[in-house]
Amino acid sequence: MLKKRPVGAPSVEETFEIQKVAKPSLSEDGQVLIRILMISVDPYMRGRMNDNKSYFTAPFEVGKPLSGGVAAEVVESRSADLKPGDKVLGFLPWLKYLVVAANTLRKLDTSVVPLEKYLSSAGYSGLSSYLPIKYIAAPKAGETVFVTGGAGAVGSCACQIFFSYGCKVISCAGSAEKVKWLQDLGIEAFNYKECALEDALMKFCPKGIDIYWDNVGGEMLETTLNHMNNFGRVVCCGMISQYNKAPKDRYGIKNLFLVVTKRLKLQGFIMSDYNEEQRVAATKELIRLICGGKLKTTETIMNGFEKVPEAFCGLFTGKNLGKMLVKI
Amino acid sequence: MLKKRPVGAPSVEETFEIQKVAKPSLSEDGQVLIRILMISVDPYMRGRMNDNKSYFTAPFEVGKPLSGGVAAEVVESRSADLKPGDKVLGFLPWLKYLVVAANTLRKLDTSVVPLEKYLSSAGYSGLSSYLPIKYIAAPKAGETVFVTGGAGAVGSCACQIFFSYGCKVISCAGSAEKVKWLQDLGIEAFNYKECALEDALMKFCPKGIDIYWDNVGGEMLETTLNHMNNFGRVVCCGMISQYNKAPKDRYGIKNLFLVVTKRLKLQGFIMSDYNEEQRVAATKELIRLICGGKLKTTETIMNGFEKVPEAFCGLFTGKNLGKMLVKI
Repeated sequence: MLKKRPVGAPSVEETFEIQKVAKPSLSEDGQVLIRILMISVDPYMRGRMNDNKSYFTAPFEVGKPLSGGVAAEVVESRSADLKPGDKVLGFLPWLKYLVVAANTLRKLDTSVVPLEKYLSSAGYSGLSSYLPIKYIAAPKAGETVFVTGGAGAVGSCACQIFFSYGCKVISCAGSAEKVKWLQDLGIEAFNYKECALEDALMKFCPKGIDIYWDNVGGEMLETTLNHMNNFGRVVCCGMISQYNKAPKDRYGIKNLFLVVTKRLKLQGFIMSDYNEEQRVAATKELIRLICGGKLKTTETIMNGFEKVPEAFCGLFTGKNLGKMLVKI
Repeated sequence: MLKKRPVGAPSVEETFEIQKVAKPSLSEDGQVLIRILMISVDPYMRGRMNDNKSYFTAPFEVGKPLSGGVAAEVVESRSADLKPGDKVLGFLPWLKYLVVAANTLRKLDTSVVPLEKYLSSAGYSGLSSYLPIKYIAAPKAGETVFVTGGAGAVGSCACQIFFSYGCKVISCAGSAEKVKWLQDLGIEAFNYKECALEDALMKFCPKGIDIYWDNVGGEMLETTLNHMNNFGRVVCCGMISQYNKAPKDRYGIKNLFLVVTKRLKLQGFIMSDYNEEQRVAATKELIRLICGGKLKTTETIMNGFEKVPEAFCGLFTGKNLGKMLVKI
C-alpha cells in the first residue's frame, strides 16, 4: 500500500506499508483466482505517487494498494479460457491473490520466452520502446541514436531495437558493470558519472545525434539538445532525474530555442496509448527479435513480496541492471 | 550592413551601418537589375546576428549587407521572363539596387493583392503560419488554440488560419490597440502585460489548450505547457522573449516532464524547409483566404532605406502592429 506520498525520494519505511488481507474467493462465472508470481516496479510509478492529475492516469491513493504490470498463475478458474496453472499477464494491484475477470488477462506461452521476459522485453518494456521507435522516432539506417538510461529496462530494449534498424547506437549508464553489459550487447556506451556528457557526446557522436531517446531529462536533455542534428527527434520516454524533485527545484532547460533552429521534434508517449492491433503486432516482432537473439535483456530480480518497496526505491539509485522485478 | 554583432538588444547606432555603394550593371543574359521597393524585417534575423552556427543558415557577416525577404521592381532586364516595371519577390541582400538572375525571383501580380501583402500574408508570414499549421499542428474543428504574439506578422496570420479550420482561437498581445485589432478580427484576445498569463488561460481556455502556437518562448511557454491538453501540439515558431539574452541568462523551463505525461509534441520549423510544391499550393490558398476576406492583416510601414535599423529594433519593443516593413 501507499502509506504516505513521498516528498523527494521514496523511502522503504515511509512510503510503503504491507498489510495482511484475506485471500479472496471466486464468486462469478468468467472469473479466475490468480496468485501473483512476479511484480514489475517502474520509474513512472513515482509520478503516480504525487497528488496531482498531471499524469496519464489517476494518482495512487494513500492507504490503497499500488498497482502495475504483474505476471501471475491461475489457481482456480470459472472461465473456459483459462485453467489452473496457466500463466497470465495483467495490470493489477499488488496483492498476493486476486480475483479478476479472465478477459482482462493475457495468457502467456512460457515455452516461447520465459515468464520474466513477458514483464520486460516481450512485455511493457519492449512495447514502450518498440512502438515509439516505430511511430515517433521513425529511424533510418545509418542515423545516430543516443539513449540515456541504456542499462534500464526500456533503455536496453531501445538500444537494441534501434540497432536492429541499422542505426549507430550510443548509450550511457551509471556503473562500469552496466557499461560493460551494454558493450557486450554491441552498443557503444560510457559511464556518465565518470565524464562530462559534453565531452562524451563530442567523442561518441562526432557527426551529431539524429535521435535522442530520453529517459533522464534535466541537464542531460539540455546538453544533448546542443548535439542534435537538424530534423532530429527526441523521444521523451521519462525524466528520472526530475521525479524526486519538487516542481520549483526541477532543472530549468534554457536552450529550447534549438527546437526552432534545428527543427527538432520532442514528443512524449505512454505505451497504453497505442491500440490493441499495434501492440499485438509489436509483441510478435519483439518475440521474433528475442528468439533470434537480437534483443537480449537482463533482469534484476529480488525475492519476496516484502522486497517490493526496496526494489522500487532502488530504481532511483541505479540498483537495477535491466528490468527490476520482484518474485513473489 | 551589420556593423557589430549585438550583445543583448540590437541598437540602431551600434548594430547597423549604411554605406554608399556603386549601382551595379547587367553583365549577363538571364539577369535583371532590380530596385528594392520594400524590405521585410523579421525577429528571426536576430538569431543570424549572433556568431554561431546553431541557426538554419549561416550567421550574417560583420561588414556585409544583411539580407531577407524583399519586394522589388525590375529596372532593366536581359531575361525573357521579366520586363522593366514587373514586381518581384526575392530573398536578397539589403541594397537599393541589385543585379540578380531572373530565375531566382518570383513575379508578383499586384492586381490580385497589393505589393505589401506579398511580404506578409501572401508571402513569408502567411507561409510561415499556413504550412506548419497544416503539417505540424494538424488542427481539427473545435480544438482550442492559443497563439502568442498574435498581433505580429506571423501570429496574426496563424490566428486567422486556425480560425478558418473551425478552431476556437485565443491570442494575446502587448497593447490595448493590438488587442482591439485582434478582437475586431473575431479573435478572443487579452493584453499579456495587464494580467497573469495563468489567470488569463484559466479564463479564456477553461477546457485547456490543444494547440499552442509559440512565438515567445521562455516563461510564457512554461506557463502554457501547464494548460495543454493530452496529445497537444506546440508549434515552435519563435522565442522572441529569449533572442536578446545570452545563453546563460535564458529562461529555464522546468516543466518539460509534461511532454511525457500529456504526450505533447513540440516541433520547430523553418518555412524554407517546405518544398516548392507545398509552398505554391499554400500561396494559392493564402491568396484565396485574403481575397475572400478571411485573412486580414495589417502592416506597419516605415519610410526610407535609413529607417531599416529602427524598424528592425522596433520588433523587440513591440512597435509593429502586424508585419513590419520598410518602404524604400
